[in-house]
Amino acid sequence: MGAYKKLKDFVGEENYYDDEAHLQAYCYDATRERYIPDCVIFPKNEDEICKILKYCNENRIAIIPRGAGSGFTGGALPSNGGVILAMERYFNNILEIDKKNMIVRVQPGVVNKHLQDAVEKEGLFYPPDPASQEYSTIGGNVSENAGGMRAAKYGITKDYVMAIRAVLPNGEIIRAGKKTIKDVAGYNIAGILIASEGTLAVITEITLKLIAKPKLKKSAMGIFATIEDAMNAVYKTMASGVTPVAMEFLDNLSIRAVESKFNKGLPINAGAILITEVDGNLNEEIMYQLDQIEQKFKENGCIEFHIAKDDKEAEDIWFARRNASQSINIYGKKKLNEDITVPRSKLPELLKKIDEIGKKYGFKIPCFGHTGDGNVHTNVMVEDLKDIDKGYEAIEEIFKIAVALEGTLSGEHGIGLSKAPFMHLAFTQAEMELFRSLKKAFDPNNILNPGKMGL
Amino acid sequence: MGAYKKLKDFVGEENYYDDEAHLQAYCYDATRERYIPDCVIFPKNEDEICKILKYCNENRIAIIPRGAGSGFTGGALPSNGGVILAMERYFNNILEIDKKNMIVRVQPGVVNKHLQDAVEKEGLFYPPDPASQEYSTIGGNVSENAGGMRAAKYGITKDYVMAIRAVLPNGEIIRAGKKTIKDVAGYNIAGILIASEGTLAVITEITLKLIAKPKLKKSAMGIFATIEDAMNAVYKTMASGVTPVAMEFLDNLSIRAVESKFNKGLPINAGAILITEVDGNLNEEIMYQLDQIEQKFKENGCIEFHIAKDDKEAEDIWFARRNASQSINIYGKKKLNEDITVPRSKLPELLKKIDEIGKKYGFKIPCFGHTGDGNVHTNVMVEDLKDIDKGYEAIEEIFKIAVALEGTLSGEHGIGLSKAPFMHLAFTQAEMELFRSLKKAFDPNNILNPGKMGL
Repeated sequence: MGAYKKLKDFVGEENYYDDEAHLQAYCYDATRERYIPDCVIFPKNEDEICKILKYCNENRIAIIPRGAGSGFTGGALPSNGGVILAMERYFNNILEIDKKNMIVRVQPGVVNKHLQDAVEKEGLFYPPDPASQEYSTIGGNVSENAGGMRAAKYGITKDYVMAIRAVLPNGEIIRAGKKTIKDVAGYNIAGILIASEGTLAVITEITLKLIAKPKLKKSAMGIFATIEDAMNAVYKTMASGVTPVAMEFLDNLSIRAVESKFNKGLPINAGAILITEVDGNLNEEIMYQLDQIEQKFKENGCIEFHIAKDDKEAEDIWFARRNASQSINIYGKKKLNEDITVPRSKLPELLKKIDEIGKKYGFKIPCFGHTGDGNVHTNVMVEDLKDIDKGYEAIEEIFKIAVALEGTLSGEHGIGLSKAPFMHLAFTQAEMELFRSLKKAFDPNNILNPGKMGL
Repeated sequence: MGAYKKLKDFVGEENYYDDEAHLQAYCYDATRERYIPDCVIFPKNEDEICKILKYCNENRIAIIPRGAGSGFTGGALPSNGGVILAMERYFNNILEIDKKNMIVRVQPGVVNKHLQDAVEKEGLFYPPDPASQEYSTIGGNVSENAGGMRAAKYGITKDYVMAIRAVLPNGEIIRAGKKTIKDVAGYNIAGILIASEGTLAVITEITLKLIAKPKLKKSAMGIFATIEDAMNAVYKTMASGVTPVAMEFLDNLSIRAVESKFNKGLPINAGAILITEVDGNLNEEIMYQLDQIEQKFKENGCIEFHIAKDDKEAEDIWFARRNASQSINIYGKKKLNEDITVPRSKLPELLKKIDEIGKKYGFKIPCFGHTGDGNVHTNVMVEDLKDIDKGYEAIEEIFKIAVALEGTLSGEHGIGLSKAPFMHLAFTQAEMELFRSLKKAFDPNNILNPGKMGL
């Protein structure tokens, strides 16, 4: 314990905690798994982080960087004990909004939505919008390469990261990337820090690209008799050349769940609904895109297509999607929630196979999510906790199908602890070996977030 | 020499060369520097590459992967001797155009323009367009993270790479990335292979994102009295929210050079011209963008703004830009051509400082390039070859200024051999050490393209 207490010298008495209340408060994330850390510290500045890392590296003490702790895969959990390096208290400042270059520079503890609001006040726009945007931090978003609903048009976190400043386990500061769109000097260190789940370096500053905020947007909903029709409509619409901001779906189980909870008059007999949004600066652009979408939807079995007349109607259209996740809890005590992603054209087959798995194991598996980029939130609902192992078997089958369809274990949640046991489904021994070599290049003593990503 | 001849066993007699003619043919690139390799081989398939790499790794033989040899920084030169692994003969196939998912899968030896033409026939679009597009290969484009004129709107090569298949020095095959927009499983290996200049692995297959080809485009030219006005117009236009496909410039020296060679009636007294292109699917979108640009240009000292009425006029507008590079040769025997990049708002200061350096050293330094993304091609023209060292001194000053203005040594050409001596201007010892660790993680025996990037 003395080894941990020494950290007080770096952060000060008032930023070091090892009392029960704090250890409990920092022992969980959105997975609800619990691992008690040895202590929790709040560094005030980069210089302290350098000293902390150097000390922990020399003394082989595990460090787990943490933003809001809102991750879905245990990425911020101290699964081997160690020090929680909590960035929320002091690293929560927007350092610069550079309007001239359409760039923002932030500390990692800034909440996504705070960033969005701040830049939108300046007529700028930061598109990545994970569902956790109200509380998740940019540091966490970068570390898990967070996606969101707008990815269909605007891409994901990595598409906006221009530069990262970070501290290596040896206490050295590195700067990676530039405030320039083009930069081909040295290895793409920023690129490898994105999605590295806090295992390579502690991020202290992030420079993000912004775009001009589109002046107009409009939402629409399409109702489909079968999920297969809806999934065909998704990829055929996207392939026709139109690029909606979002192209989200709810399957029948998700629709029924929202309706049973909120009574909004949703089409409970529909196989699926697609919810879409388009944006632009001109009304002509908006109408052109909606026309294209309506046409493609109707060619693919859309029964009813409804364009929101105003903000109120748009909000109604999006209500079902936003409330899907909480509503489906009616189907079981424990939700095994995954975020597999496949190439869009494989969506019809994916959803068919998930339905078969549900029937085979006797679970309801409501699905919804970001079909515009092939990202499906699958939720294996376990009613009786004695069936939990069977639930994980079903999950493993779903992962196998995603991989067989050229997809990925995770579209936006990361691997962390939860998906680590499944890495062998997606990666060869040679690939895992390369991951380990890379980890070692940054963190030879394995002090940074050890035990994650199946390494 | 026996060690090299063994490679015949892997590629066959007909794909192995160590005769003088071949060694000469593969000893140079666009830098005109010359380094004679020990042999040149043409692998027929990935399996051969695995065997070659394993053999060379065990025998500590240097391997230099090579596409078209069109690089500007010596990235494909065998500066320490070794084996040229020439990908042009067999690895030049487009493997799949997946229209359903708007993706193309290619071998690294496919020429950029061939890829563009093939996908455009299908109504799809691959935006990255380096000036070398007629001959440079996708493998080289990925390895140097090539840019081009359309980067202002559409980004650069890295923004289109979805997945890479490659062989490690130990002969193991790795697959990195997926055919999905979202993928957060494992480290971003594809991200680190981009811009790695052939030093980490041999790329055997590349999966690229495509977009729908915009139906309409239009070009325009603005004439400015001073280069400062023009540079202010660039960043203020981009910051106003309009996103032209391209926003290129020629300074007065470049304008005069093209005019003296081609007599096109260019404004030889202008401080600079800006050439821009916008695209979209609707005429309203096109006109909206051009209106915005014209307004911003005129607010910033644009004397004359001319919109191309048809393709012929557009071609005339672009003629000066396309012929700038060859035309400026009138200013000297040796052109020291760099591709520094700064945040757009720093362009006025950058160009002013370059002008001062030209005066100080007595060189003409014509500049042109991709101002829409802050990327300026600076050309120190050395008339008398005895002044070449002074030329390099001027270049070093230019690099220092770029770095001081938060810019980079290279926007799109890479570091290779040419810029290796300047890496210390841009990176700390800790950063260089990290690059070396990373190199070692992939290539512990330093057989892949050794001696590049200042490592």
